[in-house]
Amino acid sequence: MRIVLVIQYDGKNFCGWQIQPNVRTVQETVENAIFELTGQKTSVTASGRTDSGVHAFCQVAHFDSESSIPPENYARALNVILPSDVKIVKSMQAPKEFHARFSAKKKTYRYTFYLSEVELPLFEPYATRIIRADINKMKEASQKLIGEHDFACFLASNSSVKDTVRTIYSCKVTKKNNLIYIDVCGNGFLYNMVRTIAGTLLSAGEGKILPSDIEAILKAKTRAKAGKTMPAKGLSLIKVEYKGIKIPKF
Amino acid sequence: MRIVLVIQYDGKNFCGWQIQPNVRTVQETVENAIFELTGQKTSVTASGRTDSGVHAFCQVAHFDSESSIPPENYARALNVILPSDVKIVKSMQAPKEFHARFSAKKKTYRYTFYLSEVELPLFEPYATRIIRADINKMKEASQKLIGEHDFACFLASNSSVKDTVRTIYSCKVTKKNNLIYIDVCGNGFLYNMVRTIAGTLLSAGEGKILPSDIEAILKAKTRAKAGKTMPAKGLSLIKVEYKGIKIPKF
Repeated sequence: MRIVLVIQYDGKNFCGWQIQPNVRTVQETVENAIFELTGQKTSVTASGRTDSGVHAFCQVAHFDSESSIPPENYARALNVILPSDVKIVKSMQAPKEFHARFSAKKKTYRYTFYLSEVELPLFEPYATRIIRADINKMKEASQKLIGEHDFACFLASNSSVKDTVRTIYSCKVTKKNNLIYIDVCGNGFLYNMVRTIAGTLLSAGEGKILPSDIEAILKAKTRAKAGKTMPAKGLSLIKVEYKGIKIPKF
Repeated sequence: MRIVLVIQYDGKNFCGWQIQPNVRTVQETVENAIFELTGQKTSVTASGRTDSGVHAFCQVAHFDSESSIPPENYARALNVILPSDVKIVKSMQAPKEFHARFSAKKKTYRYTFYLSEVELPLFEPYATRIIRADINKMKEASQKLIGEHDFACFLASNSSVKDTVRTIYSCKVTKKNNLIYIDVCGNGFLYNMVRTIAGTLLSAGEGKILPSDIEAILKAKTRAKAGKTMPAKGLSLIKVEYKGIKIPKF
């Protein structure tokens, strides 16, 4: 039986989603909990690998189970075993052909900045500090990213990915008190893409580039033209959307 | 020269504000940093003592300095010395007669609940989990607290305070996605008062008491009638107001 898990994690103390030797990963932590619960060695596939330090409000993953545990009971049973920084928000049965990665229609990431002259203890763990930014310039620049583009310019320079065309459905910049959120929804993202989009929109907000420069940056297709890659701690996966399966959102 | 410090701290790893032997407190951490900076032993007085585990977005404190350091430079200089969970948001000179506690006109605390069937890693550290609550009943109950009342019913049972009359200027209950905030502004608060107000409003939201019961609870003046004291981690000091001195707010 194919089971879907909706997973929330604080990425601070994880070396990302994907299993790697000798480091603590979300995937291994969840697979170990399933093994402890069912005695079954299984591979858990996520909608996408999040990087070291990146958070997830609603990561979606699937695995196949031979256990007789009712699908909706996995959440509660696994949460007893899981550590406090990763928990199952919801578990349910999925159609046999469901695939957390390939069935995903849209994904939304949020990048968070906070405005302050000094480091603030209550903001620092989940946001990146900036001194000032022109929110309207950031909004204007964000709109230039919408649509189908070759995002090679936002790809980490050490990546070997060939197809760098992705579609951004929406990119919203909002300010709430001293917080600036960048919510990017797309059909998929390249390695470091959202963190580099955040850095490029920040450059626009700081007046280092013009919002209209975004078009040239996209056309240039080289990493050097875009802004800095922002730190992982400010990034969260907030939503994954599928046809026919409803995922809770926070 | 009297210096005002606006201090933010994550209360998680502090045994509250006030110095006590053999435990880590905010007051001692700040006083040690001042000593390291100026070589001067000094006592730092806060607007009020926050309890073990309680957070502060903008605690206000004062101390007297004989150093020649310009008042506004203390923030940056102390932040180099201070650990990451307590930082000075702002420092400035105050009139000689300014007193962080006695000059305070109003204080605002926020209590945060989050709605979820399971523990959520990204909410758990700074909010208290509840399953469900009728927000309108909580709002209705909150309005009964406004005004000058004898809050003896909300006082921790082991307290020896004599004068238990306080004035609540406003008490706002708001819901944002799966978060419920209770913002209470008053001229002063008894020990555990906000955490017990939060528990009592939750009782109203859960239908265990009626909003109209609040009046009888206040009149009864005994701790037993009010709701449970909610955990410290959901409580934050968010604002302290003075006449003639502007304190930043987040």
